[in-house]
Amino acid sequence: MGLYQRWRRLRLPGLQACGLHTALEAAVPAPPACLVERLGLFEALWAAQVKRLAGLAQKEPRTIRVALPGGRRVEAVAWNTTPYQLAQQISATLANTAVAAQVNGEPYDLERPLETDSDLRFLTFDSAEGKAVFWHSSAHVLGAAAEQLLGAVLCRGPSTECGFYHDFFLGKERCGMLVDLCRGPHLRHTGQIGGLKLLTNSSSLWKASGAPETLQRVSGVSFPTAEELRAWEEWRKEAESRDHRRIGKEQELFFFHELSPGSCFFLPRGTRVHNALVSFIRAEYTRRGFSEVKTPILFSTKLWELSGHWEHYQEDMFALQSPGSDRPTSSQSDHSTSHPTDTLALKPMNCPAHCLMFAHRPRSWRELPLRLADFGALHRAEASGSLGGLTRLRCFQQDDAHIFCAPDQLEAEIRGCLGFLRSVYAVLGFSFRLALSTRPAGFLGEPCLWDQAEQVLQQALEGFGEPWDLHPGDGAFYGPKIDVHLHDALGRPHQCGTIQLDFQLPLRFDLQYKGRAGALERPVLIHRAVLGSVERMLGVLAESCGGRWPLWLSPFQVMVIPVGTEQEDYAREVQQSLQAAGLVGDLDADSRQTLSRRVRGAQLANYNFQFVVGQKEQSNRTVNVRTRDNRRLGERDLTEAVGRLLELQNTRVPNAEEIF
Amino acid sequence: MGLYQRWRRLRLPGLQACGLHTALEAAVPAPPACLVERLGLFEALWAAQVKRLAGLAQKEPRTIRVALPGGRRVEAVAWNTTPYQLAQQISATLANTAVAAQVNGEPYDLERPLETDSDLRFLTFDSAEGKAVFWHSSAHVLGAAAEQLLGAVLCRGPSTECGFYHDFFLGKERCGMLVDLCRGPHLRHTGQIGGLKLLTNSSSLWKASGAPETLQRVSGVSFPTAEELRAWEEWRKEAESRDHRRIGKEQELFFFHELSPGSCFFLPRGTRVHNALVSFIRAEYTRRGFSEVKTPILFSTKLWELSGHWEHYQEDMFALQSPGSDRPTSSQSDHSTSHPTDTLALKPMNCPAHCLMFAHRPRSWRELPLRLADFGALHRAEASGSLGGLTRLRCFQQDDAHIFCAPDQLEAEIRGCLGFLRSVYAVLGFSFRLALSTRPAGFLGEPCLWDQAEQVLQQALEGFGEPWDLHPGDGAFYGPKIDVHLHDALGRPHQCGTIQLDFQLPLRFDLQYKGRAGALERPVLIHRAVLGSVERMLGVLAESCGGRWPLWLSPFQVMVIPVGTEQEDYAREVQQSLQAAGLVGDLDADSRQTLSRRVRGAQLANYNFQFVVGQKEQSNRTVNVRTRDNRRLGERDLTEAVGRLLELQNTRVPNAEEIF
Repeated sequence: MGLYQRWRRLRLPGLQACGLHTALEAAVPAPPACLVERLGLFEALWAAQVKRLAGLAQKEPRTIRVALPGGRRVEAVAWNTTPYQLAQQISATLANTAVAAQVNGEPYDLERPLETDSDLRFLTFDSAEGKAVFWHSSAHVLGAAAEQLLGAVLCRGPSTECGFYHDFFLGKERCGMLVDLCRGPHLRHTGQIGGLKLLTNSSSLWKASGAPETLQRVSGVSFPTAEELRAWEEWRKEAESRDHRRIGKEQELFFFHELSPGSCFFLPRGTRVHNALVSFIRAEYTRRGFSEVKTPILFSTKLWELSGHWEHYQEDMFALQSPGSDRPTSSQSDHSTSHPTDTLALKPMNCPAHCLMFAHRPRSWRELPLRLADFGALHRAEASGSLGGLTRLRCFQQDDAHIFCAPDQLEAEIRGCLGFLRSVYAVLGFSFRLALSTRPAGFLGEPCLWDQAEQVLQQALEGFGEPWDLHPGDGAFYGPKIDVHLHDALGRPHQCGTIQLDFQLPLRFDLQYKGRAGALERPVLIHRAVLGSVERMLGVLAESCGGRWPLWLSPFQVMVIPVGTEQEDYAREVQQSLQAAGLVGDLDADSRQTLSRRVRGAQLANYNFQFVVGQKEQSNRTVNVRTRDNRRLGERDLTEAVGRLLELQNTRVPNAEEIF
Repeated sequence: MGLYQRWRRLRLPGLQACGLHTALEAAVPAPPACLVERLGLFEALWAAQVKRLAGLAQKEPRTIRVALPGGRRVEAVAWNTTPYQLAQQISATLANTAVAAQVNGEPYDLERPLETDSDLRFLTFDSAEGKAVFWHSSAHVLGAAAEQLLGAVLCRGPSTECGFYHDFFLGKERCGMLVDLCRGPHLRHTGQIGGLKLLTNSSSLWKASGAPETLQRVSGVSFPTAEELRAWEEWRKEAESRDHRRIGKEQELFFFHELSPGSCFFLPRGTRVHNALVSFIRAEYTRRGFSEVKTPILFSTKLWELSGHWEHYQEDMFALQSPGSDRPTSSQSDHSTSHPTDTLALKPMNCPAHCLMFAHRPRSWRELPLRLADFGALHRAEASGSLGGLTRLRCFQQDDAHIFCAPDQLEAEIRGCLGFLRSVYAVLGFSFRLALSTRPAGFLGEPCLWDQAEQVLQQALEGFGEPWDLHPGDGAFYGPKIDVHLHDALGRPHQCGTIQLDFQLPLRFDLQYKGRAGALERPVLIHRAVLGSVERMLGVLAESCGGRWPLWLSPFQVMVIPVGTEQEDYAREVQQSLQAAGLVGDLDADSRQTLSRRVRGAQLANYNFQFVVGQKEQSNRTVNVRTRDNRRLGERDLTEAVGRLLELQNTRVPNAEEIF
């Protein structure tokens, strides 16, 4: 079969799902010479490789041992037996659904022959690693189509957390071609892709050594079957209706403005939710012996040099020259004192400021553990393309705290942090999953210190009683950590909380305390956050509750509705009682609308409660209570109703409407 | 009398009080030739002036009418009669204590002859204007001494709010000499300065057209009598003991660090006070229909161009290039999206952000008045020499709010603002004084709009029932304002609150709302603050209460003291009850100290209450309550005591110890 025939045969079954089918069938253009040449080169190399493998297998036919999943062991032939063949031996279903293999921890194409004794695992679409292979292969499908149909020059085509994308160059062709030396692994064939959907088309920037060039980026998602694609589309519709940007706009919680990209403007209602979250964490801080502090936003870059951020994080920081340092000298003689000439930078993290606070006077073991919490505004120079709603911002606040403790207090503190997480996530209605990340290659510090710390974290995790995963080598270079993924009401994971040990900052800031024995000792530092970014958590919560806020977070607590105009004054009084108690009480006295329409309107606007007041309620000084699920709770004394709402708000129950 | 004799006679009585007496008597050096020449020039000009005046008075002897203070009218001779002579006619005391005159509003030396019909006022040391003349003259005394004794070249020598200073050049002499063409007015003679004290010696910078030169700055204070100087020294000692920087350090409220000059680090106790102030204002916002919002910190300079800050305030703003805009293109190809290239600046004020918020969607008259409050962090590039404690910071928060209202809502809103001020200052224990500042020269906008607005402010002030002053021409160019000076416990004035009308920002941002009649109308904007800078107010409060915080603000609410080690567990339980209620409960279980010593220690540390627990209290589950004034309130049930403290805290009473 000649090259051109082979080219024509390259119909991509997966593409049928994405509407490119007709175009492919009808009008596949003749390939440009360079592509034909590349394909020839590939064919020749491929044939040589097949021959080499066959030679190796024949020359020294060697039996190897393969450990299959589940513990079974089988024999195989080196340079000959493939994972796919072994999958077939296990079950036809496995052979058909496996997307790639892992051989001794290394990713393998299913059809790549085994070479030596092997631990063999199969990756399917169900796992994160399997999805990555699947979506990466799907990106190649997209790439092939773009190259052949549009004459695109291919750039990156990775899988992402929720699909894949491919970048192309569509301008005039540059010299030479990108030869995709992709490491794989890949699907056995594109027929494994049962459903594929292209989602967005945008531009991206290729930064090579010269001037940046504009590329096209097309993103998509794909699944083993068309049914799975359809189910995903359903789920996405639901998720879109819960998109926090949509809810934020509809409920007037917040907005964004081009004059401050990546920073959120919180409207009164959004501010209420934000403040309620901060108050919640503050109350926990009081209970748990954390001390809130306030530290500056702008620091000399000398601080960031000391902390190491200037070396490792500078590109993500907002830095500035102090005003006056490069200003022409004023002709005014009034300025009798000078402006400083430092370079300054906005803090991206609170930890260095807390280290200064620890160090600002001598410390004793009696003060430990010292738990400093800070809601200070943090700034990070995120790329504009990565900004999106509250998920990634350039300015945000964290429920950030740093614990300075003695080494022998570490385990108790970690247990405390885990308990803190559990109790907050329980109130917010999230399940979560923990992972211990241990020392990476190139870690800093004493191995024995790491051994001990990893052991302490492991013990704390085991004592905690929740399932957890081990991620060997995933720790930060400055210490091991516990990552926390919470799951929202739609089952989507979000990384919010974290517990990180840090052996480096106490060294860099030369932090010391006087130990029991009188000698100076070095504290251990724990970075921890439960909500993470308060803004991002607000977005996650908005999506998780779909805009139906629990009472304690709700910017729509009570709508007061007078039956007729005669009750308007009393309704206003009810509203004032609510407001005086610090509750949200709005009033709908629009007499052009029927009562039931106004009640329904308030329910659709997600008001937790409706207080209807008619003539009877007015004379009894009561309110007639309904919930947003249209449950009728009947007549209640006004003072008692307000008191009950306050109680339900202060105890932060998730179901105030049910237990009112 | 020759020049040198006259020079020798220039003994400065006032200087005797500041220890320069001996030096002057003993070793007045021969004056340099240039000074002798200058003095000769002065004598000749002075003689010519005396002759000219005498000639004028003789040539056309003209009778003029003078209105004296109190309404009496007298006749006088033009170019001859002096304010001093008229003061003598009124009383010898007035003639001796007056420091200068005001003639038809213009400052006059007492010995300068009147020229025309005059309204005459006398300035004494009691008034701010009188002090300014007195201290400015004292600066000349200091200048003369420095010139003659030290060979100093004189620069600025102004009065200040609390004394005076003089800048000198002490390096090698420059060409020429500063001839002090001082406008005056001055004291009649230096003998009026009965007590003078030099206070500080520092360096300052002279910024002329060339490179800046370093000067010496000597500051001082002076009084009509030595007794007044002594009384001032007493007062100053008291004020120093109350200096908020001293209290801040002693009580571990806050500290400063060279790596963030002009920004405060609030330690846990200072944060508690800060948060209590913010909570207080938040509660008032709820009661008064203000909506809290959160706005970004960093904005494109396009915003500041729109608001006018870039034109008028740029030198006091922290501006920066967005990261990436001048960065060499990365060799990494990962960054598929670009950083923005705007110039950005940290907000020095919230108003433009609130205008964006008003404008982000169409508004209706139904939404007015819209009262947006913001505790956002503000940054201003204050010169490093002007920084001092919490009084002037580069980063601070305000209890800042902007009211957007219809013109016919203005008076009610101003009345609301005044009521807000009064109620907050009453809780904080401050008296205050209001002043209406009206349109300045060069005001912007329609005169009829100003007329109307000034009238509205005046009506609101009159209806308010507190005394107020009129400061004609002192308003901002964008609108009239009400300035508020509060007086602390030592009687010192502080400008904290403000109420300012603004006709310009609504124009610049083209703010509009749909009026009742359906047409688009322009709202009026009111800027207002009650505390002003929260940080500065914290400093004023610390000084005003001398570190003896009222319970609701106190970072030292209760010290729990077990009588013996057997009660330590119960004491801890008491402490936990307090902490669980959100109160500050500390524990002094140091059994090496006697009970009475520990009680006394807690009182000296300004703990509002001491809860002593012995065997009896433990079995009864009670606490024995004492106050920081060592009043013994006896045994109280633990739960009740905690509840009572909470109640006293929440009602923000100033005297919780008296009414517990």
